[in-house]
Amino acid sequence: MTNSTDIFLGIDGGGTKCKARLEDAQGKLLSEAMAGPANAYRNLPGSVAAVLEASQKAVAKANVQGLDLSQVHAGIGLAGINIPQVKQAFLKQSLPFASWHVTTDLHIACLGAHLGQDGAIVIVGTGSSGIAIHNAQHLEIGGHGFIVGDKGSGAWLGKKAISQCLESLDGLSPHNLLSQQLMHKLNCHNAYDVVSLTLEAKPAFYASIAPLIFELAESQQQDALLLVKQAADYINKICFRLLKGNSGSLSLIGGITQPLLGYLHSELQAIIQPAKATPEQGAVLYAKSKFTQNIRG
Amino acid sequence: MTNSTDIFLGIDGGGTKCKARLEDAQGKLLSEAMAGPANAYRNLPGSVAAVLEASQKAVAKANVQGLDLSQVHAGIGLAGINIPQVKQAFLKQSLPFASWHVTTDLHIACLGAHLGQDGAIVIVGTGSSGIAIHNAQHLEIGGHGFIVGDKGSGAWLGKKAISQCLESLDGLSPHNLLSQQLMHKLNCHNAYDVVSLTLEAKPAFYASIAPLIFELAESQQQDALLLVKQAADYINKICFRLLKGNSGSLSLIGGITQPLLGYLHSELQAIIQPAKATPEQGAVLYAKSKFTQNIRG
Repeated sequence: MTNSTDIFLGIDGGGTKCKARLEDAQGKLLSEAMAGPANAYRNLPGSVAAVLEASQKAVAKANVQGLDLSQVHAGIGLAGINIPQVKQAFLKQSLPFASWHVTTDLHIACLGAHLGQDGAIVIVGTGSSGIAIHNAQHLEIGGHGFIVGDKGSGAWLGKKAISQCLESLDGLSPHNLLSQQLMHKLNCHNAYDVVSLTLEAKPAFYASIAPLIFELAESQQQDALLLVKQAADYINKICFRLLKGNSGSLSLIGGITQPLLGYLHSELQAIIQPAKATPEQGAVLYAKSKFTQNIRG
Repeated sequence: MTNSTDIFLGIDGGGTKCKARLEDAQGKLLSEAMAGPANAYRNLPGSVAAVLEASQKAVAKANVQGLDLSQVHAGIGLAGINIPQVKQAFLKQSLPFASWHVTTDLHIACLGAHLGQDGAIVIVGTGSSGIAIHNAQHLEIGGHGFIVGDKGSGAWLGKKAISQCLESLDGLSPHNLLSQQLMHKLNCHNAYDVVSLTLEAKPAFYASIAPLIFELAESQQQDALLLVKQAADYINKICFRLLKGNSGSLSLIGGITQPLLGYLHSELQAIIQPAKATPEQGAVLYAKSKFTQNIRG
């Protein structure tokens, strides 16, 4: 098993930031640190740099005499690493840890949410995706990106609202309160203003519209309500698919979890539990389990 | 009116190519030429360069002794110029023509389709958009781009098909023949293969899938048929909106016009006529009308 002097590092590397968490073998938190975007598909060298920066900051903050990265066992969860070619390329990197293993950000989030036990999570924030872990088998769903996937997510909601707003400005559908409020929020006066905003927009821009949509849905505005229900329908489908043949433990995490929860299927609302720990804690669990496997092997 | 020695240049500058057409005052074709992409929003200096390249090539091919751009009256139709800031920026350019005027690619296409008379056109190719001209008033619809607009277009059809294919691969919807054929056409074996193709894909990639969808719809494949009917519904809406209070002359142009036509509303099928002339011929008409206005003014 782990030696009492072993130090473990958990990394949660996402599209906007990279979090690091340092723990000793007894699970005591030594330090936490943060760096920039770490999506391994979008920018592999940038991802490696972010992982190293967050790790070095965590080690520096840990206040452990003489500690450096070569004494640390790392578990790294990264967005974009689900693409096989990206994982191959990442595995070729030379990283200065005592040992390291890399997996998806979904995987470590699921390990965190269920403290390493079998279970499923769905992430609904800017994007949407899910994973179920059962008897060491993984089922990953969604996460196909803003253009052709991420249905039900914050960015998807914002994109649909803007699209409907433009149809309404074109006189192809009746004016509605959602479009009016959206124009007001975006400080737009006509279709050109709206289109100008979208021309270079990232998914985060569209996701920033989601709170307005939930607010209007809460006040029973029909167009907003319909969009939110469509989002909930898709997230319901992901949840039921992940629960099929699995343990029944399910957590929802991500930016629009709270406003969306009340629109999900009642069976799901009854079983969804808060995550027991964070993704970076899940990454530490991953590091420890890999370390234990290696000692045994 | 125009002097018999006046030479007119029509430019149709789109997202993939820029066409030039040189005519004398009697409407005799002197030459045609082509250059690269000319979308004024995406790349203003590139757009100016493409316009100049196509113009110079046309003048060189015209075989008119001593002819240069300073003797030519140009009518320029450009994609992207509908955005007011882009038009302002283009108007600040110094171009070497005797005179020049710029308008949208939709406008010159409509002038060409109806030989300068009032009427409407809908363009359904990679994107979708429409214009009606009635008593010198313009109504432009759609053309809001691949992310939030261009519904019913070839790129929209391809995007929807890929999105459905990924849902089916995720086990969230039943497998269907459209998804199977799409995987085969794209030489993909799993969701990662499909997602990899989309990561850097331009709208033209998605539009390249449209012919397969129309083919399957023709053979009554239900998923393909549903998508094509959704596209037709939207194009119907654009057409009826443009016809409201207008002359009733309507043409459809663009890459998916032919396969889509049979799915449109029967009232529209009955009145849609082929375009009488090309967009670059429309641009020459535009140049001539502006020249005449200036002479009169």
